[in-house]
Order: sequence, then C-alpha cells, then structure tokens
Amino acid sequence: MSRWEPNARGRLAEAALELCGERGYEQTTVAEIAKRAGLTERTFFRHYADKREVLFGGSGALQELFVNAVTGAPESAAPIDSIAAGLQAVSAMFVGRREYSRQRQALIVANAELRERELIKLASLSAALADALRRRGVAEPAASLTAEAGVAVFKVGFERWIAPAEEREMSQVMRESLDELKAVAAGG
Amino acid sequence: MSRWEPNARGRLAEAALELCGERGYEQTTVAEIAKRAGLTERTFFRHYADKREVLFGGSGALQELFVNAVTGAPESAAPIDSIAAGLQAVSAMFVGRREYSRQRQALIVANAELRERELIKLASLSAALADALRRRGVAEPAASLTAEAGVAVFKVGFERWIAPAEEREMSQVMRESLDELKAVAAGG
Repeated sequence: MSRWEPNARGRLAEAALELCGERGYEQTTVAEIAKRAGLTERTFFRHYADKREVLFGGSGALQELFVNAVTGAPESAAPIDSIAAGLQAVSAMFVGRREYSRQRQALIVANAELRERELIKLASLSAALADALRRRGVAEPAASLTAEAGVAVFKVGFERWIAPAEEREMSQVMRESLDELKAVAAGG
Repeated sequence: MSRWEPNARGRLAEAALELCGERGYEQTTVAEIAKRAGLTERTFFRHYADKREVLFGGSGALQELFVNAVTGAPESAAPIDSIAAGLQAVSAMFVGRREYSRQRQALIVANAELRERELIKLASLSAALADALRRRGVAEPAASLTAEAGVAVFKVGFERWIAPAEEREMSQVMRESLDELKAVAAGG
C-alpha cells in the first residue's frame, strides 16, 4: 500500500456500498467503484480479489476478533461462555455502523451471489470457532455444535440489531439472543 | 414424465454420483450423466435445472419431511421437541443410504460450487423451519434460533453419521447430537 492511498480498503468499501445502493450490485463495475473512491482499478485489485469481496472486507477481521476472544476466554469458561465472549468482542466492531450494516444487508439480501458469499463466510466462521474450541480442549461434537450455535446467535442477533426501529446496542441484542437460544434448547 | 423413463430422477442422480466419483464433478457433463443413465439430455433438463442440482435432488423431499414433522408435532410440544421430531423423520429417509451419502459428501467437500449449493439448501431449510415454528405460534427470535439449532444438529449429526467406521443409525446419532447441543447450551 502506497502512502498516497490512505485507507484505500475502507474508501473502496464505502464507494462500493454507495454505488451498489444507487445502481444495484450487478450494474456496478469495479472501474466505477475505484473511480468513486478516487483510486485506480489496479489499486482495487491489490485490496480485493473481486467485486463481491469488497462488500465482505470486514469479515476477516470479524472472524479474527471472534476467534481471539474465544481463545482468550478464561480456561475455566464453559464453551458456550467463550462464545459469549466472542459475541461481545465482535459487537464492539459494529458500534456506530448500524446504518452501514443495514445498507450492506439490503444489498446482500437482494442478490443471490452475495447471499452465497455471506453463507460461505458464516460457514468459515463456524469452522474457525470449532477449531478454536478444540484447541481449548473441547471434544467433538460439542466443539462443532457450540460453534454452530454461536454463529446462529450471531446471525439472528445481527438481523435483529439491524431491524427498523431497533435501537439497542448490538452487545445487548447478542446477549439476549444467546439467552434465548439457551432457553429454547432447554425446552422453553 | 413418460412411461418409458421409470425413476428417471433416481437413475440420473445415481449416474451423476458414479460419473463424478470417477472423473470429478467438473469433468463430468450433463450429456454423459444422461447417457450413463440411459436417458437423453432433454430428459435430464426435465428433471433438473442444471448439473449441480442433480446432486441435490433429495433436498426438497428432505425439507418437506422435516417441515411436516415440525408442523405435525403435538401442540403441547416445545419448539425444540418439534425439531427433534423433524430430525427423526428425516433420519428415516437415510436408512440404507450411508454409502451413497458418503460418496455424495466427498464430492461436495471437494468442490466450491457444490459447497455453496449445500449451504444454500441448509439456509433454505432453516428458513422453512423457522416459518413452520412461527405458524405453530413460536415468537421471534425463538423461532429462528430453534430452526438454526435444528439445522446445526442436522449438519453436525450428518457428518458424524457418515464418518468412517460409524455404524449407529442416523436416528440415534441425531438424538445424541441434539442432547449434546442441549448440554453445551446449558453450559456443559
């Protein structure tokens, strides 16, 4: 990354969201995204493999944050509690980004390709969490089931957090969603 | 469907699995699948939209069976217990199909396109289950969380059931996986 392109990744992501919101995802080209961001196509491809990827620029960081929180939870923490710590960690990433998240989600829901990519990212998150849990000594199938449960809470909690008129912080929504999962699993 | 093509769907699915197993998914064409099944390409496309779809021919039936079991569970059943009934219902579909399921899974795991399609089918199953639960009067987010939990158990249980040397019936593996999910949710 050259010093003439400060925060190129973020600028490209913002430009992509703007343009796709205006024209639709399919009608937007990489060249237009780069231009809107004041950058070149070549710079675009230094940061993102393709047009889909620019809308998922944060998912690597999200996964890392989630996994690190699970890994760093106290040794005595039950698997589900280490997942709870992960949900709190990722919630911090979304502070102040509800409107951005709403716009992004609207694009994803409207496009089959983007929905596919989203599902792949969530499956990758689940695999990474299961791996982190196994490294904490959690056996199978508990590790995979806890990881899947964590991703389910994240997914459902995220949808609630971006719902119209929702104003609670993501951290609170995630806490409540996890409690709700526990309640339904217990036969509530 | 003409009377000269008995069980064309099943024959095409078997032929596809065989050929893809021999040559790889990408190297197999629709024409070859149809030929191996003793049918024409035209017949193939009467039954399946594309080459990917022939490997997912059972997923509509699976979803229907799962949803019907949830819908038909006793009114007094807790949401998670109606999901348990669904897991038992779909297990019946797989009796005698472990080796087929192993071959199919090996193909899916090896191909990104097929993994995507699989994730889409599971997301569709989850949405259909959430819908069935809401029709039973289950509120959100409990409905979505229970549905996601059910799909998580199905996914993890399925992987265990097809593991090498696994010999227990799917119904038993699903029961144990659901119990395990309840245990991890309870902080076990």
